[in-house]
Amino acid sequence: MNPLAGLSGAEAIRRVRQGETTVEALAEAQLDRAAAREAQVRAWAYLAPEQVLSEARRLDRSQDLLPLKGLTIGVKDIIDTADMPTACGSPIYAGHRPAADAVSVARLRAAGALVMGKAVTAEFATYTPGPTRNPLDPARTPGGSSSGSAAAVADCQVQTAFGTQTAGSVIRPASFCGTLGFKASYGRFSYQGAHRLSLTLDTLGFFARDFEDFQFIGRALCVAGQWRPVAIKDKPRLAYVRTPWWDQASPAVRAAMDETVARLKAAGAEVIEVDLPPEYTALAAAQALIMAYEASVNLAPEAASHGELLSPRLRELIAAGAAATTEEIQTAHALARECRDRLRGVFAQVAGIITPAAPGVAPEGLESTGDPLFSRIWTFLGTPCTGFPVAAGEGGLPVSAQIVGPVGQDEATLALAAWVHDIAGGWRLPALGEGA
Amino acid sequence: MNPLAGLSGAEAIRRVRQGETTVEALAEAQLDRAAAREAQVRAWAYLAPEQVLSEARRLDRSQDLLPLKGLTIGVKDIIDTADMPTACGSPIYAGHRPAADAVSVARLRAAGALVMGKAVTAEFATYTPGPTRNPLDPARTPGGSSSGSAAAVADCQVQTAFGTQTAGSVIRPASFCGTLGFKASYGRFSYQGAHRLSLTLDTLGFFARDFEDFQFIGRALCVAGQWRPVAIKDKPRLAYVRTPWWDQASPAVRAAMDETVARLKAAGAEVIEVDLPPEYTALAAAQALIMAYEASVNLAPEAASHGELLSPRLRELIAAGAAATTEEIQTAHALARECRDRLRGVFAQVAGIITPAAPGVAPEGLESTGDPLFSRIWTFLGTPCTGFPVAAGEGGLPVSAQIVGPVGQDEATLALAAWVHDIAGGWRLPALGEGA
Repeated sequence: MNPLAGLSGAEAIRRVRQGETTVEALAEAQLDRAAAREAQVRAWAYLAPEQVLSEARRLDRSQDLLPLKGLTIGVKDIIDTADMPTACGSPIYAGHRPAADAVSVARLRAAGALVMGKAVTAEFATYTPGPTRNPLDPARTPGGSSSGSAAAVADCQVQTAFGTQTAGSVIRPASFCGTLGFKASYGRFSYQGAHRLSLTLDTLGFFARDFEDFQFIGRALCVAGQWRPVAIKDKPRLAYVRTPWWDQASPAVRAAMDETVARLKAAGAEVIEVDLPPEYTALAAAQALIMAYEASVNLAPEAASHGELLSPRLRELIAAGAAATTEEIQTAHALARECRDRLRGVFAQVAGIITPAAPGVAPEGLESTGDPLFSRIWTFLGTPCTGFPVAAGEGGLPVSAQIVGPVGQDEATLALAAWVHDIAGGWRLPALGEGA
Repeated sequence: MNPLAGLSGAEAIRRVRQGETTVEALAEAQLDRAAAREAQVRAWAYLAPEQVLSEARRLDRSQDLLPLKGLTIGVKDIIDTADMPTACGSPIYAGHRPAADAVSVARLRAAGALVMGKAVTAEFATYTPGPTRNPLDPARTPGGSSSGSAAAVADCQVQTAFGTQTAGSVIRPASFCGTLGFKASYGRFSYQGAHRLSLTLDTLGFFARDFEDFQFIGRALCVAGQWRPVAIKDKPRLAYVRTPWWDQASPAVRAAMDETVARLKAAGAEVIEVDLPPEYTALAAAQALIMAYEASVNLAPEAASHGELLSPRLRELIAAGAAATTEEIQTAHALARECRDRLRGVFAQVAGIITPAAPGVAPEGLESTGDPLFSRIWTFLGTPCTGFPVAAGEGGLPVSAQIVGPVGQDEATLALAAWVHDIAGGWRLPALGEGA
């Protein structure tokens, strides 16, 4: 396999800038990889090699100063692209061609990134999976709902990919596939042009194999000067949060977390154990309620006109949301407000929280995308979250931790996560050709 | 002029239900009114009478139980309609035809409402006006950005209309044109399919000539059972908030507010005067900063690819937003959080706040849509707001008050506003044929 397919985005950008390779050569290597692997992994909802290569050549010819030239991205198929269909993982939108790129896609393209194709999403970014398999073990789910995005990045079919998270749709598949995942602060990047599931929860996120790629993406998505990478202090202070769901984490996850924290302390970090106050226990259920309620609002047109084309599971989610009472909804939001206030107190003392990314390694089977439990509360709180593998769990599959930071401080959270990832060591994606 | 054009939505629904009239007859009356007035008022970005009448006949033939049958609505031209263009008040989107209806439009249509056409919006719902004139005085602005929506409702060309509010784009034009205005709680109704200007501010709103119409609309937009009209208590308790900008209100506005409060007290309401704490003074500027910043993010694709087609004023707004620093943005959000917390303390004591809707009557000239100052803070706080005329000001033009309620309590806020409106008396829209 062509090693160009395995480069990180940051390294590819450097090589293109120095004239050592071309966008076309990079795209070709990844398209070859995708062609060889698609039958097994099925990461793509839409992939048109000729279109990609033609666009790659256009970028190579361009004389403009393009800061992302060399970066390739996959786009979750609920995010609009004007030149590729956007089907939202639903037969209702099969072949649907939006009029314009989503704001986020337009910004990355304007900065010189190459869109490789549309990555498989679970149905409307909820729970009913598409055909994607875990590239590390085809008998296991890649996670969801950003299934194709995580699988394609882990499998070196693209350098980076867009995801979205409403419950745990970035951090969970990143963990299951062994990539890095980054869910931005709520509202940090424009969501315009992504199919809305939940106004108060939906957030953009990304997959990559190198933390530096997130910095390139963040800089391109923010208006000039508003993305400001920061260096972390020598001895960062962290809170270790096992969460009220610790007993639902697998033994491998619990061991990996404790081991990672021990390594951080050995490296000079100060780590304090923090128990979330009891209010947080109810927050996961509150998130699920708001997600169901808002899904019932936002998917109402599809349910009304094409209800028979929705999966039974999604119909159940919508019905559950429609049954929520105004009091339940208000109570859920009030709880989130209270927990956000309390969380600011925690972040007055520490730079970040370290906590599990998922309850275990990727589960067997393709009928479920796994459990977003360890992400629900953070999504509701609006924090930036970054996930990364820290150890091998059952079957040698990756187990990930996540670093959660203060709302709006995505740059510092990414820097802290990169530092922790370096120290944790543990598990790394197989080099090209070693994959299952 | 055909008196059917002057019916409220609630009355039209009743008559259709009782077989006293048809949707077609109602539509014809309003289309005639629009044809007679369009050259002077210019409320419509798109109006296709044959299409409307054909849809009206389809509704008349339908045997379905349609709770909004008889209701006509205008749709602000930043909100998607699959069968009518959506141009966002910008030449960039001239003739643009979205693939699907916005969620809100789809829900009202599914309930039997008839879309009459697309109402003129200021450019991307900001400040550069379209051609609409105030139906009460063609030398004056109708306000903005929901200019055509307010003008068409005030002028009996349609019963109700969609607007959106990011600063004061519903409450201000409602005040200038003398209609009722209702801006929902932030996030209460789906914004999907409306062109985003600002994730944290944009909110749906409506114009009508009868408070009952808002109840019909709210019920149709919410999933079953989640819109629950409430009766107000006999002697409601209100806070009279003059705001830190009292000296920028015209003498007529100040007199009308004091007079309205005196009437409320005489009617048995308890009204306490509340001075906003100093933090609120900075909140209007913080709202303006966030609006500019988020506009710079959300309009980045248009600015990059068609910058020359943006108005100079919008380019300035985008440039100002792009110059905001991360600290300024964070500080603005922190201030809003603090003020939201404090506001809950106020609403622990009163059912609603009464405060001016705009600094004065509709200003002369068409080059500006007037000042959203008296709405900025409420939009940022996410509260439901309802505006309604309470007195005649300069030149006999309407002066409006607004009732602001607790977040999420749109139903109670509307009920309180209707009660206050009844007591305030003062100014009423001219009956058909009396207009300027």
